[in-house]
Amino acid sequence: MKAEIISVGTELLMGQIVNTNAQYISMRLPDVGVSVYYQSVVGDNPGRLKECLNIALGRSDVVILTGGLGPTKDDLTKETVCEVLNKKLVLNEECLQVMKDFFNRMNRPMTENNIKQAYLPEGSIIVKNSNGTAPGCIIETDGKIVVMLPGPPQEMRPMFEETVIPYFMRFSNYRLESKFIRIFGMGESAVADKISDIIDNQTNPTIAPYAKEGEVTLRVTAKYDKGEAEADIIAPVVEQIKARLGDVVYSVDNESLEEVTAKLLMDNNLTISIAESCTGGLVSARLTEIPGISKVFNRAVIAYSNEAKMEHLGVKAETLAKHGAVSRETAVEMAEGVRKAADTDIGVSITGIAGPGGGTPQKPVGLVFTALSDGTQTYCRELRLWGDRRRIRNVTAHNVFDMVRRYALKLPVNG
Amino acid sequence: MKAEIISVGTELLMGQIVNTNAQYISMRLPDVGVSVYYQSVVGDNPGRLKECLNIALGRSDVVILTGGLGPTKDDLTKETVCEVLNKKLVLNEECLQVMKDFFNRMNRPMTENNIKQAYLPEGSIIVKNSNGTAPGCIIETDGKIVVMLPGPPQEMRPMFEETVIPYFMRFSNYRLESKFIRIFGMGESAVADKISDIIDNQTNPTIAPYAKEGEVTLRVTAKYDKGEAEADIIAPVVEQIKARLGDVVYSVDNESLEEVTAKLLMDNNLTISIAESCTGGLVSARLTEIPGISKVFNRAVIAYSNEAKMEHLGVKAETLAKHGAVSRETAVEMAEGVRKAADTDIGVSITGIAGPGGGTPQKPVGLVFTALSDGTQTYCRELRLWGDRRRIRNVTAHNVFDMVRRYALKLPVNG
Repeated sequence: MKAEIISVGTELLMGQIVNTNAQYISMRLPDVGVSVYYQSVVGDNPGRLKECLNIALGRSDVVILTGGLGPTKDDLTKETVCEVLNKKLVLNEECLQVMKDFFNRMNRPMTENNIKQAYLPEGSIIVKNSNGTAPGCIIETDGKIVVMLPGPPQEMRPMFEETVIPYFMRFSNYRLESKFIRIFGMGESAVADKISDIIDNQTNPTIAPYAKEGEVTLRVTAKYDKGEAEADIIAPVVEQIKARLGDVVYSVDNESLEEVTAKLLMDNNLTISIAESCTGGLVSARLTEIPGISKVFNRAVIAYSNEAKMEHLGVKAETLAKHGAVSRETAVEMAEGVRKAADTDIGVSITGIAGPGGGTPQKPVGLVFTALSDGTQTYCRELRLWGDRRRIRNVTAHNVFDMVRRYALKLPVNG
Repeated sequence: MKAEIISVGTELLMGQIVNTNAQYISMRLPDVGVSVYYQSVVGDNPGRLKECLNIALGRSDVVILTGGLGPTKDDLTKETVCEVLNKKLVLNEECLQVMKDFFNRMNRPMTENNIKQAYLPEGSIIVKNSNGTAPGCIIETDGKIVVMLPGPPQEMRPMFEETVIPYFMRFSNYRLESKFIRIFGMGESAVADKISDIIDNQTNPTIAPYAKEGEVTLRVTAKYDKGEAEADIIAPVVEQIKARLGDVVYSVDNESLEEVTAKLLMDNNLTISIAESCTGGLVSARLTEIPGISKVFNRAVIAYSNEAKMEHLGVKAETLAKHGAVSRETAVEMAEGVRKAADTDIGVSITGIAGPGGGTPQKPVGLVFTALSDGTQTYCRELRLWGDRRRIRNVTAHNVFDMVRRYALKLPVNG
């Protein structure tokens, strides 16, 4: 089935928010044999929404709309869809009751305009909303399927998972499955070059590369017919690519570098402490996004000032005076110092110049040192990064996770 | 002028990446009198791209395409646009030279397929690319304007700013101007309620609210005709709203809470140190996104373990034993301890349960204490947050910045 996503909302057309709903839905639909061919965004304007909906119904089997189901006068998706499909909006008593209960639970009065949300197109399938007041619905009409969901992602996503995905599961006669091979430490063109024959010779699965801030991802997508005895056609290709690229491949399950690293630390009970300067807490913040990390993450010291480097990390005054805060020597002492203070298996450190100010001809913006110490040995990477403050901090964090990952896997830490 | 953005790329339709280009362009075009009425996304498929382009040319004055200008066989935007507009692609010697220089600078060989990128539609205006190899272009044809830009945001954005924005500036006979009033500490419905009469009575400027993770933003948008003597029609409305809402308004210039807070710290030379537990470095990472912050930010201690809380922050063992790590008492000692260790004007602390594990009936997931100490007085907020780990950490960080902002402004710290 061919699908089109129509996101309704002037805030999208004004660029106030990014369209994460379209991304989420696009990512999930192929799993149930629905291919997204188009995404559209239109404002809270009935005329233009009607036009978009007619175009979508003309070229797609499935149209999924998000947004415009709220209680205010702006919210016109349901009314407009019903007009195009020639359906009546009828009060749904069940939805009304759920809404009343919701307001009771939240201990808030239900206002008159909320009742509008309990009206649904006649004959439609209700999509329940456990995280908000606006229910969604699925309409089957003239061989087309139209789905309406609310705009807030924290409402839309559970509704999509709980009702919409199971709904489509029944129809699909094939499904797409993707694996994402994630790579750090090799550029996009080098990756493409190494596997160009594999890319060129494949029709199922297909392979597509893309790059972002020092990382490269290969999407490997296979099409499976339903009912067919399912030989796994992805795994051999993934294995072939992994063998070709080597240990720069850090995940074939679309995990982030910090997820992979955190899992390795937790699985191996390898405790870690962190000393950050120019990344200012970013490495720790990313690592602690992973639930359960407190098992192995002991502490971090964000030592912006030289005093903090000396007091908490035992960096020597001579080292700072002789080599400067941004130096291999300081990075090494920071990693060793934090490891000692925290009594962890490994200590890692980051010191550098993230910019925009602070650079000199000898030590330009983008010069970063990251070190890893295990008490016996200390490894250090010197990075020369380009880009703005945000990019420099991000690529630095990637490098730290890469060092830890390689250490945990007993690979050469510096590649 | 009415514009439509067409983003070309199968990676968007697969949900691998979020369409930040459409958001960026949508946000900027109104500044030069161009209104975005539609956004579309289509894969790297000439047939469907042709169809989308024809629809766009039929209903919009300006069509901006991003993506599909790369060197590979997938990249077909230019070829397809030329077919629809009946233009020839011709080799542009200037672009070819720029590209050769680029590869020389990067010390990489230029491959044959890169030359394809130097072909541009006849008679088009070149949009130079300082950050990559694919130039963009602007085509004026039959009263329509078609702009093509590469997909990578770090290439697209500077090209858009340097060439596309000045290009449109010449045409526009009006412009839209928006102010964004940003609010923390009051819910969306309370905000809307307090200013409902202002919203209802306004036609120019218009006012639209939206909410995200504990923050509310009001967009105030005015339309100015070019040449007209420009009385500022936004400022009085912004002032009226500010007066109505009071000190929960933290910015009228669309700054983030951390930007506003960082600026206040820097302007007042108020030095700060941070002790984080459940936020794991997020508060420090966000604060240090702001260039120049090293002037006032001394250090942070991410004290996940009780040992770290005692060693670096001087939290008493009795306090931890009696009240637990997640308690008002511990938060207070952490804030006082980090301030003392760092010898800064203020110290702030965070301790809580971000989940998903670790909650108990007495101390559920979402219970967070944040404290601020100035050596004389210590303030503490007890938060009861809902949502997942990511949301709890984010809203906690907002609260910390809000406390610091209010302290720096000599407002009651706890509202």
